[in-house]
Amino acid sequence: MFAPLQNDTFLRACMRQATDHTPVWLMRQAGRYLPEYCATRAKAGSFMGLATNTDFATEVTLQPLERYPLDAAILFSDILTVPDAMGLGLSFAQGEGPKFAKNVRNEAAVNELAVPDMAKLRYVFDAVTSIRKALNGRVPLIGFSGSPWTLACYMVEGAGSDDYRHVKTLMYSRPDLMHRLLEINADAVALYLNTQIEAGAQAVMIFDSWGGVLADGMFQQFSMAYTKRVLAQLKRSHDGAVIPRLVFTKGGGLWLSEMAELDCEVLGVDWTVNLTQARTQVGGQVGGPGKALQGNLDPNSLFAPADAIAAEARRVLDDFGKPHTDTTTTGPTQIFNLGHGISQFTPPDSVGVLVEAVHTHSRALRKP
Amino acid sequence: MFAPLQNDTFLRACMRQATDHTPVWLMRQAGRYLPEYCATRAKAGSFMGLATNTDFATEVTLQPLERYPLDAAILFSDILTVPDAMGLGLSFAQGEGPKFAKNVRNEAAVNELAVPDMAKLRYVFDAVTSIRKALNGRVPLIGFSGSPWTLACYMVEGAGSDDYRHVKTLMYSRPDLMHRLLEINADAVALYLNTQIEAGAQAVMIFDSWGGVLADGMFQQFSMAYTKRVLAQLKRSHDGAVIPRLVFTKGGGLWLSEMAELDCEVLGVDWTVNLTQARTQVGGQVGGPGKALQGNLDPNSLFAPADAIAAEARRVLDDFGKPHTDTTTTGPTQIFNLGHGISQFTPPDSVGVLVEAVHTHSRALRKP
Repeated sequence: MFAPLQNDTFLRACMRQATDHTPVWLMRQAGRYLPEYCATRAKAGSFMGLATNTDFATEVTLQPLERYPLDAAILFSDILTVPDAMGLGLSFAQGEGPKFAKNVRNEAAVNELAVPDMAKLRYVFDAVTSIRKALNGRVPLIGFSGSPWTLACYMVEGAGSDDYRHVKTLMYSRPDLMHRLLEINADAVALYLNTQIEAGAQAVMIFDSWGGVLADGMFQQFSMAYTKRVLAQLKRSHDGAVIPRLVFTKGGGLWLSEMAELDCEVLGVDWTVNLTQARTQVGGQVGGPGKALQGNLDPNSLFAPADAIAAEARRVLDDFGKPHTDTTTTGPTQIFNLGHGISQFTPPDSVGVLVEAVHTHSRALRKP
Repeated sequence: MFAPLQNDTFLRACMRQATDHTPVWLMRQAGRYLPEYCATRAKAGSFMGLATNTDFATEVTLQPLERYPLDAAILFSDILTVPDAMGLGLSFAQGEGPKFAKNVRNEAAVNELAVPDMAKLRYVFDAVTSIRKALNGRVPLIGFSGSPWTLACYMVEGAGSDDYRHVKTLMYSRPDLMHRLLEINADAVALYLNTQIEAGAQAVMIFDSWGGVLADGMFQQFSMAYTKRVLAQLKRSHDGAVIPRLVFTKGGGLWLSEMAELDCEVLGVDWTVNLTQARTQVGGQVGGPGKALQGNLDPNSLFAPADAIAAEARRVLDDFGKPHTDTTTTGPTQIFNLGHGISQFTPPDSVGVLVEAVHTHSRALRKP
C-alpha cells in the first residue's frame, strides 16, 4: 500500500540503532513561520478547516520537507482533537489559543464523558493515510496525541491557562473525579493512536505539554500513571514494522529517572535538561537497554544570527556526546529537536541553518 | 530604634538552627485575595500608588499578620522598582501585569543604563523603616528584589512574556550586551538590598522568577552568575544581627545542586521539587554546612476543601522530614511557603487552615 522507506534514520535512532547522522525534525515544523503554511491556512479559512481537510493537512505537512532535509514528518493536526470528538466543541479564534464550547468541572460533566467513536476522528486517519502516500517513502510519518493529563487541563479549564486553577482545584478537591476523567482520556488516546498506526503512522508521540505544572507526587499519580495506561494499550508493530513510541513532558526534567520506567522507546526533554546527565540517567549503555533521547534546543535560539544558531546546535550535540556507531547492537542515541514547538516568528532561513548544522556536525562526531 | 524581636523562628530556621515549629509565610501574602488589601488599593488608586505611599505599604504589609499567625512579614513592593528607578517607566494597567514605557533591546539602550540613584527608591526604604516600626518586634521583616536576570526579562520585553523571545534574542545574538546589562542590574540590586538592610530589613530575598525559562548552561551564565555577583556584595550583618539571604529560582529544581554553591543561607524551591531529595542534595547534615530550604506547596492546593489543604501541608512537611532539634548545633531546616505567589482567587479561610496545619503538624514532627 505504501512505498518503501528511503530514509529510516529517525526510526533507527528511536530504536537506539546506529545511524550515520543524528536525525532532526522540529515540533510544529509545519507552522506559521512558513509563508506557504499561512497561505494554505488562509485558503482553509480557519485552523480547524485546515486540520479537517485531508488535502490541506497533507499539503502543510509536506511543506517543511520541501524546504529542509528533515528526517521525519509529523501529522498536521492538533492535540485537542480527542476532546473535540468527545463533544466539547473545539475552536481557535484568530491569534488566540484553543477554546472549548463546554468545560468539564463537576461530576455531571465527567459522567457525560466517554471514549469517542473514532468515526468522528476519521479526518485525522484520512490525513495520516494521505500524508503517508504523499511522502512516498521519503521519511517516516509520526502520529501524535496529547497526553491524558494535558487533554484534561484544556477540558477542565476550557482553554489554555496560566495558572491551571480549575483543573488543579478539581484534582485537589475531587481526585476521584479526576482519576475517572483521566481513565477515559487514556483509553481514548490509546484507541486514537492505534487507529493512526493502522492508518499509516510509523511512530507515535504523546505530548504531555502540561505535565510540568504538577507538583512532585501529583505528576506521578495524575500524569505519568495515565501515560503508562496509554502505552500499555498501544500496538507494538504494524504491517511488519515496529512502531516506536515517544513521550515528551515539557518541564518534566526532574522526573526523567522515573520516566525511564515507561514502556516507550524515546523520551523527549526540553532545554532546561542537561543532555550529558540525561544520557547517564536514561540513555543506557552500548548493548544494554535504555531510552533514546529527543531534544532539546531552545526555540528562541533560532532568532540569533546563523553562526550563533550553528554553535548552539553543535553545543546540544556535544552535550549529548558521541552517539554509538556499532551497527551490531543498540546504544545511546539522540533525535535532534527543539525543546518546544517552533515560534511563529522564526525566520525560515534559521531552520535551514539548524538542519544543516545538525547533519554536518553529527556526521563529524561519528568519525573515529 | 526598633523593638526587640519576639518571634525569631523564621530567622533561626534561615540559619539552620532548631526551632519548636516550622516557620511559615507566603509569597505575596499581602495581596488581592484579602478584601482589606483590595480596599486599601482602591484608596491608593493604583498599584504604584499603593507601593510608593509609606502608610499604605505599611498597612497592607501588616494585613495578613492580623488574620494569620505568620512567622514573617515581607515588604509590600514590586520586583520591578529598580528598572523603574533606572528610568524605564513602570506602570500596572488594571487587571494586567507590569509594563515599562521604554524597553532595552539594543546597544544604545544598554549604554543608557546605570545603577540608579537610591534617592529615587526612597519610598521603598521609607516603607521598610515604617513597617519595621509598625511590626513592633512581632515577626522579622523580609526585604527583596528581583534577580538581575528576572529584571532583564522585563526590561528587554518591556512587559511580561510567554515566550521571552526578545530577551533571548538579545542573549543569543549579543551575549556581550546582555552581560553588560546584567552587571549593571547586579550592582543595582546589591545596592538596593543593602539600603533595605540599613533601613530595617532583617532578611533579604532575591526572586529569580524567570531563571527557569533559560536553557541548561545559559541559566548558569546569565542568571546564577549574576545572583552570585549580588550575593558577594551584600552586607552580612547589620546593627549586630546576621542578615540571612534567600534565593528563589522558579523552575530551578534541576540546578539545585549547582545552586548549593551560592553564598546564601536559604534556597527556595517550587512544587515540582521533591523535598526529600532536595534535603539530601543541599540540606546538609546535623553539625555540618548546608542550606535551609524554603517551600513548596502548590498554591492551587488552597482551592481544595480544608481537610485536603491540611493533608497537603502535612505531606510537604513529611516530605522534608524530621527537622533537627538539637539547639547546640545547626542542621537541616525548612521554612514553609508556597512554591509561587498566592493566587488572587484564594479563599482567605484556606490560608488560616494552612498556617494552622503547618504549625500543628510541624510541632508534632518534632516530638521524640
